[in-house]
Amino acid sequence: MSQGPYKPLDAQVIPRFAGIRTFMRAPHVTDLTGVDVAVYGIPFDTATSYRTGPRFGPEAIRSASALLRPYNPALAVNLVDALSIVDYGDVPVSPGDTERTYAQVEEALAPIVEAGVFPAALGGDHAITLAELRALAKKHGPLALVQLDSHGDVWESYFGQRYFHGTTFKRALEEDLLDPTASVQAGMRGSLYGPDDIQIAKDFGFTVLTTDELRELGPQRYGELVREKTGDRPVFVSFDIDFLDPAFAPGTGTPEAGGFSTAEALAFVRNLKGIRLEGCDVVEVSPPYDNAGAVTALAAATVMYELLSLRACLPA
Amino acid sequence: MSQGPYKPLDAQVIPRFAGIRTFMRAPHVTDLTGVDVAVYGIPFDTATSYRTGPRFGPEAIRSASALLRPYNPALAVNLVDALSIVDYGDVPVSPGDTERTYAQVEEALAPIVEAGVFPAALGGDHAITLAELRALAKKHGPLALVQLDSHGDVWESYFGQRYFHGTTFKRALEEDLLDPTASVQAGMRGSLYGPDDIQIAKDFGFTVLTTDELRELGPQRYGELVREKTGDRPVFVSFDIDFLDPAFAPGTGTPEAGGFSTAEALAFVRNLKGIRLEGCDVVEVSPPYDNAGAVTALAAATVMYELLSLRACLPA
Amino acid sequence: MSQGPYKPLDAQVIPRFAGIRTFMRAPHVTDLTGVDVAVYGIPFDTATSYRTGPRFGPEAIRSASALLRPYNPALAVNLVDALSIVDYGDVPVSPGDTERTYAQVEEALAPIVEAGVFPAALGGDHAITLAELRALAKKHGPLALVQLDSHGDVWESYFGQRYFHGTTFKRALEEDLLDPTASVQAGMRGSLYGPDDIQIAKDFGFTVLTTDELRELGPQRYGELVREKTGDRPVFVSFDIDFLDPAFAPGTGTPEAGGFSTAEALAFVRNLKGIRLEGCDVVEVSPPYDNAGAVTALAAATVMYELLSLRACLPA
Amino acid sequence: MSQGPYKPLDAQVIPRFAGIRTFMRAPHVTDLTGVDVAVYGIPFDTATSYRTGPRFGPEAIRSASALLRPYNPALAVNLVDALSIVDYGDVPVSPGDTERTYAQVEEALAPIVEAGVFPAALGGDHAITLAELRALAKKHGPLALVQLDSHGDVWESYFGQRYFHGTTFKRALEEDLLDPTASVQAGMRGSLYGPDDIQIAKDFGFTVLTTDELRELGPQRYGELVREKTGDRPVFVSFDIDFLDPAFAPGTGTPEAGGFSTAEALAFVRNLKGIRLEGCDVVEVSPPYDNAGAVTALAAATVMYELLSLRACLPA
Amino acid sequence: MSQGPYKPLDAQVIPRFAGIRTFMRAPHVTDLTGVDVAVYGIPFDTATSYRTGPRFGPEAIRSASALLRPYNPALAVNLVDALSIVDYGDVPVSPGDTERTYAQVEEALAPIVEAGVFPAALGGDHAITLAELRALAKKHGPLALVQLDSHGDVWESYFGQRYFHGTTFKRALEEDLLDPTASVQAGMRGSLYGPDDIQIAKDFGFTVLTTDELRELGPQRYGELVREKTGDRPVFVSFDIDFLDPAFAPGTGTPEAGGFSTAEALAFVRNLKGIRLEGCDVVEVSPPYDNAGAVTALAAATVMYELLSLRACLPA
Amino acid sequence: MSQGPYKPLDAQVIPRFAGIRTFMRAPHVTDLTGVDVAVYGIPFDTATSYRTGPRFGPEAIRSASALLRPYNPALAVNLVDALSIVDYGDVPVSPGDTERTYAQVEEALAPIVEAGVFPAALGGDHAITLAELRALAKKHGPLALVQLDSHGDVWESYFGQRYFHGTTFKRALEEDLLDPTASVQAGMRGSLYGPDDIQIAKDFGFTVLTTDELRELGPQRYGELVREKTGDRPVFVSFDIDFLDPAFAPGTGTPEAGGFSTAEALAFVRNLKGIRLEGCDVVEVSPPYDNAGAVTALAAATVMYELLSLRACLPA
Repeated sequence: MSQGPYKPLDAQVIPRFAGIRTFMRAPHVTDLTGVDVAVYGIPFDTATSYRTGPRFGPEAIRSASALLRPYNPALAVNLVDALSIVDYGDVPVSPGDTERTYAQVEEALAPIVEAGVFPAALGGDHAITLAELRALAKKHGPLALVQLDSHGDVWESYFGQRYFHGTTFKRALEEDLLDPTASVQAGMRGSLYGPDDIQIAKDFGFTVLTTDELRELGPQRYGELVREKTGDRPVFVSFDIDFLDPAFAPGTGTPEAGGFSTAEALAFVRNLKGIRLEGCDVVEVSPPYDNAGAVTALAAATVMYELLSLRACLPA
Repeated sequence: MSQGPYKPLDAQVIPRFAGIRTFMRAPHVTDLTGVDVAVYGIPFDTATSYRTGPRFGPEAIRSASALLRPYNPALAVNLVDALSIVDYGDVPVSPGDTERTYAQVEEALAPIVEAGVFPAALGGDHAITLAELRALAKKHGPLALVQLDSHGDVWESYFGQRYFHGTTFKRALEEDLLDPTASVQAGMRGSLYGPDDIQIAKDFGFTVLTTDELRELGPQRYGELVREKTGDRPVFVSFDIDFLDPAFAPGTGTPEAGGFSTAEALAFVRNLKGIRLEGCDVVEVSPPYDNAGAVTALAAATVMYELLSLRACLPA
Repeated sequence: MSQGPYKPLDAQVIPRFAGIRTFMRAPHVTDLTGVDVAVYGIPFDTATSYRTGPRFGPEAIRSASALLRPYNPALAVNLVDALSIVDYGDVPVSPGDTERTYAQVEEALAPIVEAGVFPAALGGDHAITLAELRALAKKHGPLALVQLDSHGDVWESYFGQRYFHGTTFKRALEEDLLDPTASVQAGMRGSLYGPDDIQIAKDFGFTVLTTDELRELGPQRYGELVREKTGDRPVFVSFDIDFLDPAFAPGTGTPEAGGFSTAEALAFVRNLKGIRLEGCDVVEVSPPYDNAGAVTALAAATVMYELLSLRACLPA
Repeated sequence: MSQGPYKPLDAQVIPRFAGIRTFMRAPHVTDLTGVDVAVYGIPFDTATSYRTGPRFGPEAIRSASALLRPYNPALAVNLVDALSIVDYGDVPVSPGDTERTYAQVEEALAPIVEAGVFPAALGGDHAITLAELRALAKKHGPLALVQLDSHGDVWESYFGQRYFHGTTFKRALEEDLLDPTASVQAGMRGSLYGPDDIQIAKDFGFTVLTTDELRELGPQRYGELVREKTGDRPVFVSFDIDFLDPAFAPGTGTPEAGGFSTAEALAFVRNLKGIRLEGCDVVEVSPPYDNAGAVTALAAATVMYELLSLRACLPA
Repeated sequence: MSQGPYKPLDAQVIPRFAGIRTFMRAPHVTDLTGVDVAVYGIPFDTATSYRTGPRFGPEAIRSASALLRPYNPALAVNLVDALSIVDYGDVPVSPGDTERTYAQVEEALAPIVEAGVFPAALGGDHAITLAELRALAKKHGPLALVQLDSHGDVWESYFGQRYFHGTTFKRALEEDLLDPTASVQAGMRGSLYGPDDIQIAKDFGFTVLTTDELRELGPQRYGELVREKTGDRPVFVSFDIDFLDPAFAPGTGTPEAGGFSTAEALAFVRNLKGIRLEGCDVVEVSPPYDNAGAVTALAAATVMYELLSLRACLPA
Repeated sequence: MSQGPYKPLDAQVIPRFAGIRTFMRAPHVTDLTGVDVAVYGIPFDTATSYRTGPRFGPEAIRSASALLRPYNPALAVNLVDALSIVDYGDVPVSPGDTERTYAQVEEALAPIVEAGVFPAALGGDHAITLAELRALAKKHGPLALVQLDSHGDVWESYFGQRYFHGTTFKRALEEDLLDPTASVQAGMRGSLYGPDDIQIAKDFGFTVLTTDELRELGPQRYGELVREKTGDRPVFVSFDIDFLDPAFAPGTGTPEAGGFSTAEALAFVRNLKGIRLEGCDVVEVSPPYDNAGAVTALAAATVMYELLSLRACLPA
């Protein structure tokens, strides 16, 4: 009958390696009263074009998140004091059926969004973001997208399917879920099918920064650019773990050599401080390809921690 | 312009660890003239209910098969002398769309079956067997199924889908692809949703042997039973690698503790000598869960080798 | 405000790979009203003499247990219908301090035992069993021990410590927690410090069966022997995963070559049907030494499933 | 009877995870008519001084190369349009006999070089480069060597053998296969047997840049330096994967801590644009030491992709 | 009867992959006559708060150290010529009992310190440093601490224990083993329990540099700062491998995302040249979480090599 | 100046996970006075036909052997009381040159054999056994070979080389090192190049038992057969780890599916009690293909322990 504010297990009583694995050891709660943030999993990987496995992403990120403590010194905020965070569990999905899963995710998210609770998703492949955006756009209208990713995911179709992890943001634009002129994709790299691949997103109106351009720009100016582009619009941040170099994130489905270190990625995310964050996800963590130290899952959990910190820094 | 008989690379010239990875180092040929056996891959895993990964099964089995030499002492047959074997490559599939994949596999198999070439599939999840049976039943009529598997795969549906790796043989019966009274399922074990689960297949008319019953029966009497049941009907053998205990086949999607050793499995297969084998597959090898020694892939390659040996033992 | 009977997540709605990881996907509940069985973890590994890691055992066993379905065909019982099972979470422990941990475990178990709820522990190293026995003996008096293990764990001390994973049952006897003449240790094997090592336990009055003797005896006669020895006394079954051969349980701390297969182990456990089971644990699962397929954790989860089935088979 | 231009499998028909594993999914062809580039493997590792395993390097690099798409945005070139690329398979080798293998490689390369086809080798340990240089020098005379490597490989002998992976370039100089004043070694780091070790190559006339010096110089000035040194001479680029830090390339035989990231390495290679590239190899990938995500093999495949792009950028 | 100077195995006679594994292949000697440096292991991990495993750290670091050659080009010193180095083996420890282990380590170190031999420890978790400091302070008085680590390890207690791997330097200060104003902690990062966590060490008088501050400062100015702070006081350098990013050191117990590369770490260590080094350790290497290429152990061995080089650079 | 009898480290003082890794924690001694058994490594793998890696076999077997205690209950003998055992280290080898290595091994073994010390080798690939037999036959004349292996290793040559891991016993016969009529090969299985492969060894006069025949015979009758065949001749036992099924020994170079369990293997070895054992080896352990639990190395160490026990059981 607890109604928040919710607190994680006390690490001085239950050691961090102990306890049922929830995100940051938050209570697993599905009643939204008294909740500020609902972290939830979308364990879906039917829409992957190369390696599968992200259906186990939420489990792995939760496990790694046990290492996270409440206070974020980089942003000078205590997450647990600032926000009542729960682990909402996993939403229902239908392995093998992307569109049915979209409907399930939208239905599951509706009460969270309606309740004004901040939704933070643990993926799952990148196809799932479309369902999240549908749920959020119903309340907020078109959102500004801030995407950190090595791929633009703006293809038309794959293997006869319009809904796939490489078509997410094209569909989102067609469905008026995004404001392209307020949206920034960054981190694109790797071989392409042709020179137009980068151009497509630019033609939509997105600001697109390749890995080389983003590296040149640096975290501080990236933050400024994003704040300028997104202004006071509601923002959705989507972080694809393949933004990182495969050495830092081996556990992913379509790795691209030559990416960012985790230290660089955290700096980019922290410099987004000040955007009006209304939703976020971390996607494409594929545990069967991670290493024994679970570095990919730890990087993903830490990125989510920084995203929640951005939310915690916003004025109430 | 070669038209068989095809021979593998000579291990005295190109060491077994060298060369493009094809099954048993056979030539990769798609012209069927002069071919007796076409080994081919179906790299599909959209229809899996737990761990994914079998889309990389054909690659792993091919890699392990480099260890196989031409002469099978257990069945006293030289595979390479007896049969002109080629690696036909992988047939087209559509990740994320099971029914579209079925149509692609059926289309790809049609010319092989029509040419009288023996088709041997490397899976892929167990859903793919339905497409294989469709292609073969067009020529042979309903087949006798000999299934070695820890699961019966006779469910009605999963997550709203009628085509899934747990529904394959129910669909096959409904489509008149199998002769249930001539069919034998063996190796069922593990926890179930209810006591009727085993009964379903028996009600279809299948002979069903649990792991305990099969162990009690032993390889020799199992062979006799199958030969008696299948008689002179055309037979399809479907070997799901989870027939093996997880210690012998860690690389699979729905492992069940308490299974057979590889030595036992090979004995069961060899004792099928004499059945009228018209098609076969080895399925559910999931390489991301295999170990560094690739024991699952090696077991799968060896089972396929024994199945081809059964074919080679048949009178021409 | 639910008060049982508790049911696991429905695998037709939330796929088995989804959801917060609890044992068999049972609800995580700490109110004991309406509960028949409390599965709980003791994530402790300070008392290990070789490889560490069992503090992550409960997490790994929970993860693997998602594969278990309600109906056990070997014992013809539906666990979920027969028993209201919850995951009680992990009890508090103090890494680095064995005796403090004992006190914590005893305190945490007291309300479970008092409530008449069946306690089933996921270890943790074998030292933890002492605390479990203390809690149970308070209610039941001395218990009959049924231990499946490659080591007797009846040493006097290690490195100056009387409480260690190799001294558990000596301490238990000294504290009058066990009835030695009703107790059976089975599976002992591997090199020893001297010929007396096996003799110690026999001198206590235990029945001791080496691996060779147990293999010779077979599952059925083992069950008869145990039922005869334990009679109508309350029984505690302690299953150390190193009872299995390292090929079947690589993820453990003091592996001994030449052990049992999982199939054999399950047969031994199932043949205990009829004993008056009042508590049990599965210990010494060390996930960092397990393989990618998590075969050790799956074997452990399945053994626990069979132990709960034994309980479910008892007349109410 | 196809005679090029050869194209890879279409990723919209055969998904990238499917198909027989050849480099970049190019056709496996051994008739050189219509071929611009022959990628081939030299699966040899007898001449390694620490960890072995590179005999499986070609297989692993081919497998990872399935992720590569035709268009290289960094160099603005479509590899598949610009060049008719085939996978020539593996050349014969003799495990256990370095000098016999050299003869086999030279014999196998002769027709490729004579046909004016660009040879690109997948190693194999670094000993194999000597055979490649012999074959190329027969046509081109002494080549300019551009070596990216943590070791100079200019020793006199190892364990009584003059042909070993640490003696390659000393032998090449003695055989007049290289023009030392046009050659640049870069990336040397790690502990040495003595201060003269770096000096040896300098005394030969090589330009030698340690890791610290190269890092200081940066990609752009490195490219200028190499273009200045090599001028219009024919160039051979040899990329030893241990140029990368072990975090980026764990799968190699003599790792040296403190190396480059993959992003840095790709920048160094791309800045070689304009050199007259006549041959290249990527060596010392040892798959048994790679991780589950195969980051080493992916880095190696991407480096080879960039090297082929350099060739594609040359005026026809 | 040898009495030094001791030399490692000759790599031209016994290949580096051969021989009993000692640090840098030095002789295993426990007689201190003629010895300059005693490298020894403290295989202890009872005092870890998250993942265990460092009890196998000394074994793993020794194994990786076989790759190290005598001459350090970065510091222009031949370690083997400059110093008579032995592997002193592992000191006795008591798994499960931190304080007893401290007494054992102090007793074991006393003769080394008394003999004026430089002690270099391979950990083991960070708790062990307290015992080392006790032994050294007996001779030298309070030492200047130079700590490279992502955690400050200045907590008061954990789970009721005052001696734990997170309390080491608080205890050391209380015991007057350190001179705080001469001590520098660097590399702190990651989430905290509260804003005071960093402040505690500053309040002690330590100079504390976070990862961001240290990165900003750079290796050269870091070296200057440390030399200024430590002056001519005796210095102890304690390198916790979690100073590195988890991509570079997956094999550790409490990884923090966003750390340094190995190249950066080596630069920081080398720039300490000139400090009056009297003891050092490399701790928290946890082999079960390392990868197949053992990159963590190799990084640790290389850091130790650089530390010994610092000692070798000191005037005799 | 110790001269035996040598004893291992005391596990009550130095825990078994601690200490420099020698076989069974025996002292590393190269003076043979007072020594009964010299365990030594031959870290050589140039002569392997498929996977490499056995050069690290001795290191891995030593590491696993730390788990072995002095008393063998199966044979009722205390190894440490019965024999003065030392670890002699690794003998010099020349990677890349098999014949030079043979000469080095022969030279290194000569003083051991001359001193009447029992030599027990840790391989290394199976080629090394020829050098061992040469050294032993110089003293004992032709030996009776007892080989447990899945391959006969009686080929004429491989890739132009007469000395290879598949030719060892043909060479040994040609050099009169073996008495074929007293020799027994057992465990042969797997695919062959032709039906004559098994026949070759029989034609030499060897008794050859396939895996099926040996399984049928059982341990006890196998022991009787070997004792009958070998009589009072000096015996060399060569145990190739691929005798085991790949599930029990994944870490080997040419695995064959369908082999023995470790429990079966130990029973076969123990039943050899009474043979006049004069030398032995355990070969083909390839650590890079082993799993995290090191089950292959542990099986190998345990087999060696049983072989030494056979020696200890002989009358002095």
